[in-house]
Formats: sequence, C-alpha cells, structure tokens
Amino acid sequence: MINESYKAMLGGKSIIRELSEYATARGEEIGYENVFDYTLGNPSVPCAKEFNEALINIIKNEDPVAVHGYSPSLGITRVRTAIAESLCRRFGVDYKTEHIFMTSGAAGALAHALRAVTKPGDEVLVFAPYFPEYNEYVNRTGAVLKVVPPNFEDFQINFEAFCEMLNPKVNAVLINSPNNPSGIALTTETVERLAAVLEEKQREYGHDIFIISDEPYREIIFKGAENPYISKFYDNTLSCYSFSKSLSLPGERIGYVAVNPKCTDSDILAVMFGQISRGIGHNCPASSIQLAVSEVLELTSDLSVYERNMNLIYDELIKLGFTVVKPGGTFYIFPKALEDDANAFCMKAKKYDLILVPGNNFGAPGYFRMAYCISTEKVLKSFAVLEKFVKEEYGVTV
Amino acid sequence: MINESYKAMLGGKSIIRELSEYATARGEEIGYENVFDYTLGNPSVPCAKEFNEALINIIKNEDPVAVHGYSPSLGITRVRTAIAESLCRRFGVDYKTEHIFMTSGAAGALAHALRAVTKPGDEVLVFAPYFPEYNEYVNRTGAVLKVVPPNFEDFQINFEAFCEMLNPKVNAVLINSPNNPSGIALTTETVERLAAVLEEKQREYGHDIFIISDEPYREIIFKGAENPYISKFYDNTLSCYSFSKSLSLPGERIGYVAVNPKCTDSDILAVMFGQISRGIGHNCPASSIQLAVSEVLELTSDLSVYERNMNLIYDELIKLGFTVVKPGGTFYIFPKALEDDANAFCMKAKKYDLILVPGNNFGAPGYFRMAYCISTEKVLKSFAVLEKFVKEEYGVTV
Repeated sequence: MINESYKAMLGGKSIIRELSEYATARGEEIGYENVFDYTLGNPSVPCAKEFNEALINIIKNEDPVAVHGYSPSLGITRVRTAIAESLCRRFGVDYKTEHIFMTSGAAGALAHALRAVTKPGDEVLVFAPYFPEYNEYVNRTGAVLKVVPPNFEDFQINFEAFCEMLNPKVNAVLINSPNNPSGIALTTETVERLAAVLEEKQREYGHDIFIISDEPYREIIFKGAENPYISKFYDNTLSCYSFSKSLSLPGERIGYVAVNPKCTDSDILAVMFGQISRGIGHNCPASSIQLAVSEVLELTSDLSVYERNMNLIYDELIKLGFTVVKPGGTFYIFPKALEDDANAFCMKAKKYDLILVPGNNFGAPGYFRMAYCISTEKVLKSFAVLEKFVKEEYGVTV
Repeated sequence: MINESYKAMLGGKSIIRELSEYATARGEEIGYENVFDYTLGNPSVPCAKEFNEALINIIKNEDPVAVHGYSPSLGITRVRTAIAESLCRRFGVDYKTEHIFMTSGAAGALAHALRAVTKPGDEVLVFAPYFPEYNEYVNRTGAVLKVVPPNFEDFQINFEAFCEMLNPKVNAVLINSPNNPSGIALTTETVERLAAVLEEKQREYGHDIFIISDEPYREIIFKGAENPYISKFYDNTLSCYSFSKSLSLPGERIGYVAVNPKCTDSDILAVMFGQISRGIGHNCPASSIQLAVSEVLELTSDLSVYERNMNLIYDELIKLGFTVVKPGGTFYIFPKALEDDANAFCMKAKKYDLILVPGNNFGAPGYFRMAYCISTEKVLKSFAVLEKFVKEEYGVTV
C-alpha cells in the first residue's frame, strides 16, 4: 500500500535535472571540456575560507557535547541573535532573536513560512518566471500555487495581471528577487507598488496577506542594480534566506526565516514554525554548521565570476540579436529563444553540446535559462558553439 | 490569517521539555549540583573522537566545492553505499545503495517512511509505552496513530490488544526497540511473533502492512539483552536510524531510512522519499556531516556510562521496593510510581529537586521515566534524595 500520490510523482522528473544528467553523461562520452552545461544553479566558487576555518576551530576547541548536542528547536540561541543583529545593522529592520528561525536552507524556510500563513485551499500567488519547485513546495501544503504571467518587457511585476488574480482566497504572495531564472532584481519602485497593492487588499479583504520572500540570491547583485530589502517595505513579510549561494554551501542545508517584527503575530510565528517542524520531520540545521555560519554572517564567497560571466554572455547574446533583459544579480540569464517553441530551440542547441533549459516550466514559454555559475574560460569557449548553432539553425550571422 | 491549526499547538508544550526547563531554571537558583534532572534524552558523553577527526580532515583536505556542494536528493552516493555495505556485513540483510536514503536524523527518517506507506485516514499502530512525539509525527501526515496498551509485565508486546486493534485500515506498525521510555528491547521471540501476525494479516487483508522501525538506540544495548535486527524478520520493514545517540551527534541531524531489499516496491521507495522531501522542505542532511559519519559507521561513543548508571538505578529502585522492568538498552528506565497518579508522584519528587517525567504521555499512566544520560556521580548523589523523598512521602524505608 505504497502512497499512490507520491508514487505518481516518480514520473515527473525535473527537466533541469534531466538535462543536467544528460550533460554529465555526454561529458563522460566526449570529454567534459566539450560540453557546455548551462543547466544547474550549483555554485562553482569555493566557500569563503573563513567558514572552513570557523568550523574547524569549533570542532577542535569547543566542548563536543555542546557543539554536537541538540539545538533548541528554533535554532541555537546565540546564532539566532547574531543573525538578528546582523540583519538589523545591514537593513535597518529591528529583528530580535525571537524573529529568527533556523532552517535547512531556503527549502526548509519556505516549508515553514508557507504552512504558518496558509491553510489548505488558500491561494498563493507567484510571479513568472519562477522556480518550478515552488509547485511542489506550495501544493504539497494543501494551498494552491497560482502563477501571475510575466511582464516580458523587463521581468518586473505584471501588475495588471496580478491585480486581476488577487481575490480573498489569496493569503500569501511568493516573491524571489533577485530572481531565478531571470536574474532580475525587483526595483524599489516595484516593491513599493507591490506593498501598496497588498496593503489596500488587506484592508479590502479584512485579512492579512503575507509576502513570503525567497532570498537566496540576495547577496549576488551586480553593479547598478537596485536590491531593496523587501521586509523594509511591507510589514507582513517573512524573509526566507539560505547561505547556499552567497557562501557556496548548498550541501550544508543552512538558512533561516526572518519574521518582520511588525508582522501580524510576529511574537509567535517562530514558535509556530517550531511546531510545524514536529510534523514534517525538520529538526533544525546541523548544529556545527549553525555555529560556524554565525561567525561569517557578513562574508560571501568571491562572487565576482558571476558578474563577469553575466556581462560576457549578455554582450554576446545582444550581438547575436537575442531579446534579453540584463540581469541585476544571481547567476542566471533568461533570453527569448529564436523560435516560439523554446523546447525545440533547446533540443537543437543540445545537438551542439550546448545545454540550455527551456523556460516552459518557469512559467515563461518561448524563453530559456542559462545558469552561468561555471568558469569564465568555459563561458568564452562556448561562444563559438553558440554562434555555430544560431548560424546553422537560424541563419544568424554576426 | 495565521494557520489556526498550528497556532492551537502552541499551548501543547511537551511535558518533558517543560520539566527540563524547570530543572534548568531551578539549577540557576540553587546550583546545578543540587538538581537531579532525569528529564532529557540528550547524550552526555562526547562523540567518538574519530568523527571529529574525520570531519576536520574532510574540511581541510577535500575540494570545498565538492564537500559543501549539493548532495544528490537521496544522499551522497558513496555515503549510501558505505551504509548499505556496513548494514549488510553487520546484520546480513542484502542492502544496496538504492535502499538507503539519508535523512535529518530519525525524525526526518520517520517523516519520509510514514508518508511513503500510508495515506490520510490510514491507521498506524504503536505499542505503549511510546515516544509522545509520534503523535505529531504520524497525525500531521493525515494518518492516525492508534496506541496499543502496554504489556506491563515485561513491556514486550501486548499481543492480545494488538490483534484486537488490527483491521484493514492499518497500513503500518511503528516499533521502537530498544524502547524510549522503557529501555526494553524486544526479544527475538516477540519479533518473530509480531512478524507472523503481520504476515497473516497481510494475506487476510490483501495489502501490505509495513513495520516502521525507529532504531536510534540500536547500538545502546546492555549485557544479556537480545537485540534482534527487525528487518531480518519481516520483509516489509523500513528501518529508521539516527546517529544521534550512538555517536552523540543529536544536533547534527544525521540518519537514514534503510529499505529492506525484499520489501514491496523496494526498488522505488528511496526515490519516492526524494519526492516526499520536495513537499516537506527536507533536502538531505548536511553534506560534510554525511561524509564524516560515513567514515565512522561502525564506531560509537563510549556508551559504558549508560549501562553503569542503569545497573545502579535499577538496584536502588528494587531496594526501595519499586516495580520496575530491567532495561535491555537505551538510557531510560520506566518504573511504576508509588501511587496511582504518576503526575502527583512526579510533582512530589519535584519538591525534592528530583525531576522525573510522568508516563501518561507515553501511554502508560502510573509509570514514570528517568533518563539517566547523566554522570554516574550525579546518579549516586541522587539516591539520598530519592530515599528521603520516598520515605517522607510514602513511608518507604530501607
């Protein structure tokens, strides 16, 4: 009596993972240097060395019973305090220890935030293009994810569509800036307008609407881009953070939810997250990783390669006549394909060992994603292949 | 619009945690040396030093991008292989890599195992006395936990009650041996009989009934006790393990599910667990902890203090006339209180700064739990207080 609903999910393999596995297999066949794998958002730069130093120091010098002992269910208190103080100092939101809940990365953070502020049947709105895993993250709570179509012009919010979709069943809006897959950061103007719309609708509906802000790329921001701290603009904000990308620690599963101190029930939300954990089997991130990360809160890996790669790829795409919005951060770019069917476009690219991810699953058919967290050398080498591909398949010459 | 169902849980604080917090507060008041805190199952011995050495070695010498990089969603392949091989060597069950799924401790393991083999409305049977968190673990999946009353004579299974409670809605039986709170390990005879009953009922009902075996205390076993490896006796067994107790790593949240290779759908269960993770925000235990633990799979902390403490406490309780079954493992003992109301008994003990946990929440009213993962010195010092308490309150003299 296997659970049929989970069994049915076995077919639904992520297209990203499928293409990534293809790229790996192809690499084994023809040599990795000949495959141009733009599929996975896996940081390619080592973590800040201070993280490793802090971890070794803790393991070597602190009491092992304390270091490896049970973390309180909301996270180790001094770690939560350090995060609250750092966020307060950096963003001017008056977080206290009680507003921080430690999680297994952003996925863990979203699992708690979503359950705390929605119930089965509620609607959660998300803006396309969006990370396809949000479907599983939201729909498995019993709430329903509804996708607001993209504003293709600049990948800011499509307010017209958004306002049409708002209704009293909407209890949360899920945003992700800087964005996977577009690389776009919401501007201050966009965030202010979003906050104003939601404030008005909260009054109109007579209930809270929470912003659940998924912010793993918050620290990967490029020159000239605005990067407003969402929670400053809207009180009912739950900020979901992960150290995966900023510190290159995706495997260590470490992040947090920061509850805006002015949010409804801000004094009990973190405690509620602790209750939610009991049902979903989440019991804090690893204690030694919590302790180590708390010593490097304001450091990042050397992220400069991502901006360097972005500028090179953006210029190349423009040169080849692609329609593309210049990313403000992350390590993604999301150009328009050269034919309406982005799946067909990506399948053709694959023949050239150029592995691109079609945008259909991101809620933006006709577009494709490139994850450029790879070496700059590899990026440069890929241009000849890209040029060959668009010339032979679409007659594009430069 | 906070989720009212989780909000309602805020009142339901665990009695264990409440008493533990009381003990800590009381310690601050009168000195920790004067409080005899038998509340928490938190290992008191340091982890095996080889674990720390392995972790430092990995952090110092391996490629940081690989060490801290995304773990595959089922766990790091070579870690899963090492666990499969170790289990196969130790217990003679023919596990392969594909049968092992890495989890955030036993809580994570149970969260996946339960969801995979039950659906909302199904019944899961557990034998009292049992760990009260099972209520949250099971009921939050939508399945319903039903408690088989204890066999007070020896805390083996009460088969009469069990057979009465079995019905076609039962899809899983949750067992925990050696047991929290009784310290009792199921005998081979008991496990064989349990397997025979379930085999018969599977045939009768025409569907699988899974044993979900929660085994965090598997390695803490005392002289003379039997400790049968459950999965050897019943094919449809999902073994849920944690390194928390055996290696004193509860904060590191590391464990696994081992799917019996002969279990129904054994080839797809681990992959299903990976799908379940997407909904509950679980994305593997920390990668560096996975790697480190895989190098010390057959080591434990020095667990001898637990058996020493058990023997001292057992003899003392017998001397004082308590009814108590001698534990076969763990660091718990579960005597009968000296009055019918174990809550009242524990409240009276509290006046002597002897902190005991009443058994009502464990499904065994009239009994109480002592967690003796404390120093032997403290155990010995507590006896004078215990004797004073039972003399003054119950007229027991020795």
